[in-house]
Amino acid sequence: MEKLNELIDHIASRVNVNLKTMNVDVEIFLKEAIPADKLTHYYAFYALTTDHPLYFRFRKSNLGGTYFLGKCEVDRSVLYKSDVRGDELKDKGTVVEFNGISTKLYQDEIIQITNSFLIKTLVHNHSKNPEIPEYFKILNTVAMHYSNIHGTTTEGVYLGPFATIDLSIMHNCVVGDYSYVQAGDLSRRTIDPGHIWIYYEGLFEFDYRYPKGVVEKYVSLDKSGKLSGEFSVFLRERQNDFASIYSAVLPDPPMDVPINAFVSPYAVVKGNCAIGENSLVAQRAYIADSTLGTGANAQENCYILNSKYDGMNVTAHGGKVIHSHLGRKVFTGFNSFLRGSENAKITVGAKSIVMPHTIIDATEPITIPEGSLVWGYITKQDDLATQCIALDEFAKLKELDLGNLTFRGDGDQFVAAFQHRIEHILEENGAYFDGSDKTRGHAQKTQSVSFNLFQPFLAGAEEGMFPTMTIGDSA
Amino acid sequence: MEKLNELIDHIASRVNVNLKTMNVDVEIFLKEAIPADKLTHYYAFYALTTDHPLYFRFRKSNLGGTYFLGKCEVDRSVLYKSDVRGDELKDKGTVVEFNGISTKLYQDEIIQITNSFLIKTLVHNHSKNPEIPEYFKILNTVAMHYSNIHGTTTEGVYLGPFATIDLSIMHNCVVGDYSYVQAGDLSRRTIDPGHIWIYYEGLFEFDYRYPKGVVEKYVSLDKSGKLSGEFSVFLRERQNDFASIYSAVLPDPPMDVPINAFVSPYAVVKGNCAIGENSLVAQRAYIADSTLGTGANAQENCYILNSKYDGMNVTAHGGKVIHSHLGRKVFTGFNSFLRGSENAKITVGAKSIVMPHTIIDATEPITIPEGSLVWGYITKQDDLATQCIALDEFAKLKELDLGNLTFRGDGDQFVAAFQHRIEHILEENGAYFDGSDKTRGHAQKTQSVSFNLFQPFLAGAEEGMFPTMTIGDSA
Repeated sequence: MEKLNELIDHIASRVNVNLKTMNVDVEIFLKEAIPADKLTHYYAFYALTTDHPLYFRFRKSNLGGTYFLGKCEVDRSVLYKSDVRGDELKDKGTVVEFNGISTKLYQDEIIQITNSFLIKTLVHNHSKNPEIPEYFKILNTVAMHYSNIHGTTTEGVYLGPFATIDLSIMHNCVVGDYSYVQAGDLSRRTIDPGHIWIYYEGLFEFDYRYPKGVVEKYVSLDKSGKLSGEFSVFLRERQNDFASIYSAVLPDPPMDVPINAFVSPYAVVKGNCAIGENSLVAQRAYIADSTLGTGANAQENCYILNSKYDGMNVTAHGGKVIHSHLGRKVFTGFNSFLRGSENAKITVGAKSIVMPHTIIDATEPITIPEGSLVWGYITKQDDLATQCIALDEFAKLKELDLGNLTFRGDGDQFVAAFQHRIEHILEENGAYFDGSDKTRGHAQKTQSVSFNLFQPFLAGAEEGMFPTMTIGDSA
Repeated sequence: MEKLNELIDHIASRVNVNLKTMNVDVEIFLKEAIPADKLTHYYAFYALTTDHPLYFRFRKSNLGGTYFLGKCEVDRSVLYKSDVRGDELKDKGTVVEFNGISTKLYQDEIIQITNSFLIKTLVHNHSKNPEIPEYFKILNTVAMHYSNIHGTTTEGVYLGPFATIDLSIMHNCVVGDYSYVQAGDLSRRTIDPGHIWIYYEGLFEFDYRYPKGVVEKYVSLDKSGKLSGEFSVFLRERQNDFASIYSAVLPDPPMDVPINAFVSPYAVVKGNCAIGENSLVAQRAYIADSTLGTGANAQENCYILNSKYDGMNVTAHGGKVIHSHLGRKVFTGFNSFLRGSENAKITVGAKSIVMPHTIIDATEPITIPEGSLVWGYITKQDDLATQCIALDEFAKLKELDLGNLTFRGDGDQFVAAFQHRIEHILEENGAYFDGSDKTRGHAQKTQSVSFNLFQPFLAGAEEGMFPTMTIGDSA
C-alpha cells in the first residue's frame, strides 16, 4: 500500500498548504476517517448512456465505491463512496453569461478533481464559475462525510460532514459541520457549523444559525475523524440494505416502474412502495413503504420512509423524510431531516419550501400549512411560530428578525429565485415529460443506462490504487 | 444497433476478401451464429494483478462476455465470450531466436486483434512468430465456437468449431471443425474437419484423421451458424451453472483452497471437490465431485466430473474428463473428450499423454497402461490396439501406420517435444512452486487478482458497441 499512503500524504500536504492560515490540519482526518482496508474494498463505477457524452480519465487515485456519470478527470485523489454526477455539464459552444459578459465554451465542460479527498460526497454540477467555464474544478479539497459540492470551484477547501456548498466559489476556506452556503465568492472565510447562509450581493441575505448544541446532537466529528450523532446512527442502521445491490453486476430492478420513470438499480426500494410517472429515484436513494406521486424525485442519499408524496416533489441530495405527508410540489432541501413517527406525523402543505439543512424532529404531530417557507430546528408545532412563514408573506418582506433568522433584502426576489430553481430541477429531472424531446429529463435519459465497474490493485505497492484509465474521447 | 451491424459487415468483408479463393463466405455465420440481443447482453472483464503489466485498448468493438489478462489492443472486432489470456507475453528486452537468428524485443509483446470475430474462443499466447515478435496478431479472422488460437499469427483465417491452431502461423487458410494443427507456416491451406496434424519439417509428422461420420456426431455447424452435436449438448446442459457466478461483482470463492493453489472465482466448483497445493483452476473451468492432486490444473473450458487426478496433471484448454481416474502426470490435450460413466470408468496410467482432440467415449471400462500415447476415437478397450502405444516404444519409431494414423520421422523427438512442453506448462502454472521466486507460476501469481467489468451501450446507434477505452500504459 506504499502508493496509497504516499497519495494520502500528498493530498494532506496540498490541502494544508492552503489552509495553514485558517488553523486547520486535515492530516489526521485523511489518515483515520477511512480504515485502509475499506479503501481497497470497493469498486468504482461509471454510467454509459446515450445522452451523456462519454469521457473519463482516472490517474493515480483511489476511487473506491464512487459513481461517475459526466465527463470527469481525476488525478491524485481519493474519492470514497462519492457520487460525481455531472449530468448538467455544459456542451462545447454553449454561451454563458457572467456579470453581463457573454463567453462561449471552447470545449465540453469537464469535472476535474485534483489532489482532493472526498468521503461520501455528492458532487453535482450546475456551474456558475466565470473563471474557466470549461472546467468544473475541485482542487486541494477535503470534503467529509455526506457533504455536497454543488456547482462550484473549490480550491483549498475543507468541508465538514453534512456541509453543503451550493453555487459558490470557494478559495481557501473552511465550511463547518452541517452548514449550508450559497454566497458567491468565499475566500479565506470560516463558516461556522450549523450556519445556513444565502447571500446575493445587493439582493438579499438569509442568515440562520442553529441553537447551540443542536448540530452536535445530529452531526459530530471527533478529532480522529470518527463520525457520530443521530444522522450517522440513522444511516448506519440502513447501510446493510445496500450490500446486496452493490455485489451484483446487474442488480435486479427494485420494483415495477412506470414508463418514463426511472428507479436506479443502485437504489434501495423496500416494502410497499409505488412511484408515479416521470418520477426519478437516483442511485444510493432509499425508499421504504412510501408512495411517490407523478414527477416526484428522490436524489442521491435521500431516505424516504413511511411517507407519501403527492407529486412533483423534489427531495434534494441527502434529504431524509420519515412518516411524513408532503403535498404537491413540496421541496425538501439538501440534507434536511424530517423525522416523524407513527404518533407524530409530519404534514407539509402543497408548494411549501423546506429550506436546505432544516431539521424537523417531531415529538408530536406537526402540520405545516400550504405555501410555507420552513427552516431551522423544529420539534413541535409551536416551533413553527419562529421558523415558518407563508411564502407570499415572505415575498413582501424587506427585513425579518425571527428566532435565529436574520433576513435582509428583497423577499420577493428570494422566493422567486427559489421557485425558479425548483422548476429548473423538475424540468431537468423530466418531471414534466410529455413525450416531446424538449421535456425529456434525467428520468427519461437514464432509461438505457449501463454501468461499468472497476477495482483497485489488491496487492503489492499499488494495493488500493486504481489503474490509470481513459474512457471515450475528451473532445 | 447501426454501428454493430456495420461492424459485422466490416469484419465479414475483411475476412471474405482473404478467403475468397478458398471458397468460403463467413457472412452468414457472423450474422446468424449469435443472436443480436446476446451481443448486447454480456459484460466483458479484465484482470488486475501485480504480476502482469496492465495495458488494454479497446476501440469500435463488441467484447461481450470476454475475459482479458495480458496486454491487448482490440480494434473493430467482435469477441463473444472469449478468453484472451496473454499471460506468457514476452517482455521488452527479451531475446528470441528464430531459425538460429536472435533478436531482442523493442517493447513488451501485445496481443492485437483487428477486424476479427471470435466466438467462445480461447486465445492463449506462447508466440513463435518470427515476423514481429512484439505483436501477437489476430487479423481478419473468424473463429467459431470453442476454437483455440494458441501462440500464433492468424491473418484471414476461418476456424471451425472446436478447432485448435497451436504454435502455427496461418495466412489465408481454413481450419475444419475439430481439427488440430501444429504445423508451422500454413498459407492457403484447407485443413479438413477432424484432421489432427503435427508437422515439424525435417523432424516428424503425426497425421491422424477421424473416421467418416465421427466428427459430425460430436461437432456440427449448420449453414446458418447453429452448433449441434454431443459436445454442444454436453456444454449446454451445464451452462446455467455459470449464471450466478457471472452476475456477481465479486463471486464468492467456490471452495476452500490450499495456500499457493488458485481457483478462479469465475470457475464452477460443485459437489464434493478437493484440490491440492499448487493446483490451478482457471476461469470458465468446471469441476464437480472430483479431486485434483498437487500441481494439477484445469484450464479454461475444461470440465472435470466425477474424476480423480493423482497430481501434476495438465488438462489443456477445453479438455473434458468424466468418470475417469488419471494417474500422476497424465496430460490431456486440447478439446479432448474422455467420457466414462458409473459402469464404464476410464483409467489412464501415470505419465500418459492423451493427444489433443482425442475422443474416448467409453461404452465399457477402459484402462490405458502407464506411459502410453493415446489418440483418435476410442469407445472400448479393443480400440486401444490401433490408437494407443507405449511412449518408450513410440520413441524408437521412425515410421508408423496404425489405424488412421500415419507417423513419419523421429519418434524420440516427438515424445521429447511433448514431454518438454508438458513440463513447461507445469512450470508456468506453478505446479512445482516451493516458495522460491523461480518456481512461482500462474497459480501463485493470480492470488491477488481483481476483475474490472465493462458493458456496451444499451440504446441508440451505439447499442452493443463497447466504449473506447485505454487502461494502463502501453510502454
